[in-house]
Amino acid sequence: MTINLKNFLSSNKKTSKMGDFQEVKDIEGLQVSAVSADLYKNGRDDLSIFYFPEGANHAIAYTKNSIVSESITWNRKNTKNNIKALVVNTKNANTFTGEQGLNSLDEIAKDLVDSLKKVESENDYEKTKFKEILFASTGVIGEKFPLEKIKASIPHLISSLRPNQNKLIWLKVASAIMTTDTKPKVAYSEIKFGDKKVRLAGIAKGSGMIAPNLATMFSFIFTDADISSITLNKYLHKVLPNTFNAITVDSDTSTNDMVAIFSTKKVKLKKLNTISSKEALKFEKALRTVCLELSKQIVVDGEGAKKFITIKITNSETTDRAKKIAFSIANSPLVKTAVAGEDPNWGRILMGIGKSGERIDQKKIIIKLGEFIVAENGKISDNYDEKKLQEYMKWDSILIEVDLKQGHEQYECYTCDFTHDYIDINAHYRRS
Amino acid sequence: MTINLKNFLSSNKKTSKMGDFQEVKDIEGLQVSAVSADLYKNGRDDLSIFYFPEGANHAIAYTKNSIVSESITWNRKNTKNNIKALVVNTKNANTFTGEQGLNSLDEIAKDLVDSLKKVESENDYEKTKFKEILFASTGVIGEKFPLEKIKASIPHLISSLRPNQNKLIWLKVASAIMTTDTKPKVAYSEIKFGDKKVRLAGIAKGSGMIAPNLATMFSFIFTDADISSITLNKYLHKVLPNTFNAITVDSDTSTNDMVAIFSTKKVKLKKLNTISSKEALKFEKALRTVCLELSKQIVVDGEGAKKFITIKITNSETTDRAKKIAFSIANSPLVKTAVAGEDPNWGRILMGIGKSGERIDQKKIIIKLGEFIVAENGKISDNYDEKKLQEYMKWDSILIEVDLKQGHEQYECYTCDFTHDYIDINAHYRRS
Repeated sequence: MTINLKNFLSSNKKTSKMGDFQEVKDIEGLQVSAVSADLYKNGRDDLSIFYFPEGANHAIAYTKNSIVSESITWNRKNTKNNIKALVVNTKNANTFTGEQGLNSLDEIAKDLVDSLKKVESENDYEKTKFKEILFASTGVIGEKFPLEKIKASIPHLISSLRPNQNKLIWLKVASAIMTTDTKPKVAYSEIKFGDKKVRLAGIAKGSGMIAPNLATMFSFIFTDADISSITLNKYLHKVLPNTFNAITVDSDTSTNDMVAIFSTKKVKLKKLNTISSKEALKFEKALRTVCLELSKQIVVDGEGAKKFITIKITNSETTDRAKKIAFSIANSPLVKTAVAGEDPNWGRILMGIGKSGERIDQKKIIIKLGEFIVAENGKISDNYDEKKLQEYMKWDSILIEVDLKQGHEQYECYTCDFTHDYIDINAHYRRS
Repeated sequence: MTINLKNFLSSNKKTSKMGDFQEVKDIEGLQVSAVSADLYKNGRDDLSIFYFPEGANHAIAYTKNSIVSESITWNRKNTKNNIKALVVNTKNANTFTGEQGLNSLDEIAKDLVDSLKKVESENDYEKTKFKEILFASTGVIGEKFPLEKIKASIPHLISSLRPNQNKLIWLKVASAIMTTDTKPKVAYSEIKFGDKKVRLAGIAKGSGMIAPNLATMFSFIFTDADISSITLNKYLHKVLPNTFNAITVDSDTSTNDMVAIFSTKKVKLKKLNTISSKEALKFEKALRTVCLELSKQIVVDGEGAKKFITIKITNSETTDRAKKIAFSIANSPLVKTAVAGEDPNWGRILMGIGKSGERIDQKKIIIKLGEFIVAENGKISDNYDEKKLQEYMKWDSILIEVDLKQGHEQYECYTCDFTHDYIDINAHYRRS
């Protein structure tokens, strides 16, 4: 990943310094821990736990891939509304591991319940139940799940639990969930409601695609606001289409993708449970910001990525049509290699628009690269300036904009370019 | 393109020597010519004509891209059932050229009608009418259509017309329609019906994707059998799903794609116009063979391709489901880079299956690489042998087979691997 973050530009202006580490504060009611279970055999942290001593509400969106990890199967089968812990392992995806994979989670859950007992009785917390645990696994597919190594690490994992009181702890856990990512991904937002403050902290992993075997994308977001699981689910599905579902590195989706939001219920603010209230809209906006920031960090860290690409479709009859056209461009290897080559090859954008199969009026549409109009009125722009465009294509962040002139809806999605490094990483990664 | 054709293998056996040039014979009632209109400024042939002195029936399938070449627009607007000529130019796609592009074709058509008059009166052929001409253009998008150069070349183009009496002529015209292809693509088949013989000759171009600006795919097939336009259309749409529509190089489709079949009406055989007759089925089979051969030649010549990949989905409930899963695997950059890296990374095949979104039973499916079962019963195969698989992945042609165990339908599609050369060609092609 060599995108120069100092020059990181969204659209054509220097508006965002993504990746510059912002402040992250403690979420009350959450304890975290990350240890090495020796899964990578090199000492790095690969097993982590997010523990809610007094329980948490939650909502999860899982991958739409029709083959899923046994960890997801386990969650779907067991976990109730109230949860006490989320356990994350890397290196092994627990996918296509059959009964061995599923039964391992039963054993781990039982061990966790036992190990937590001591802490819980000392602190007068309610006892964690078997079905109050969630799992997330990422890594190689089809390899035996490393039950013994994980079991052996549980005592250490539990004894290392601590409040998430500073930025370094967040970095530690965000690093522990990484696979082929080159940097940890953390985002934070704080909202004031009169004299009350609500916090939102999130971490993510996913190097766009490959990660050991696949492009598992995880994001875990924590808030201290007291919000019911049902309402959390509503918030999550309101922000997903324009954040985690608006990014693509190579069009591949994994068997393990998972975005989850947890409420530790510490800050009481009734109106946050009324989804149309002024307060709720403020919370939704903050959640969207956190999710969008994490999404963009994932794209920036895309395998082999050297450029960040924003694709914006405006004046569409429907959002759905704008989205289909945006992704048709974003997923085109021809567009992505042209951007890698710093070539303002707008013919490929045109092809990407048409490939969507959506009805468009080719006499009306306007295609822009950054602020430069390249095509309009069914032909190349009269002001087309190849030299200026070549200069623009050297930027780290490229904006491709298509004005459909059909209606008033719009959609924006994000991707990165396709480089030699992508091929290198993906052709040989199992051997490296 | 470095696929070793001598070792070219479909499935696991040495069944096909694709690319080895077969016999191609004359199609009576067809004359061809190819000249340089100096569009490439290097003397290569770039303008060609396929002339039917006594007219031809025809059927065409055009690109599904919603942005199309002005040449396609012209054909749709003007051309009737009976046609006299197909004119093909390369270097300029005549796409996003606005009125200049469309009006140019009017002028060219008029000039052609005039130039043909002399030949036609000398030979007592019926005069070609303006609306009996078809156009096909491939090349860069958005550049002014080279009307003057093409007009200036028409006399030479017409005076060079000759019967397609030998293989070298076929090679010449197949070369004249190429853009970034590395070799001409020709296929031929002959069918005997009692004492009558029917011939089918086809040419194609398309280097999978890129070709000047895009991956324009052309295929023109000629038969001397007397078949009506309506019936030709039926034949064409019967064979397309498993031939030209079963190939993908990078999932991108062009604004100019066109597959056309022409009948010179020379060999009368009434039963060929009854689509369910024994004779018709024989003709359909021969047409399928010609189209499949041309399709495979396009994949083998895919930009940067080093390996040919066959993806076969068996025992599906419906063909449609099998097709969706096949293309989901075939269009996955993760699968294609793994094949480039000769890595038997079956986890990515699994991901590709699931990404289709189609309902599958992960406990039932069987995944094979060549003849080796890699996964079954929801886990890695007990007989999995990494060493043998690594040997297999070194072959030039790789078979990925997925048995869904759901029904009795199947679908096969074809693609190539994703290599460094792909990135090189596509990142910098406008400058090279």
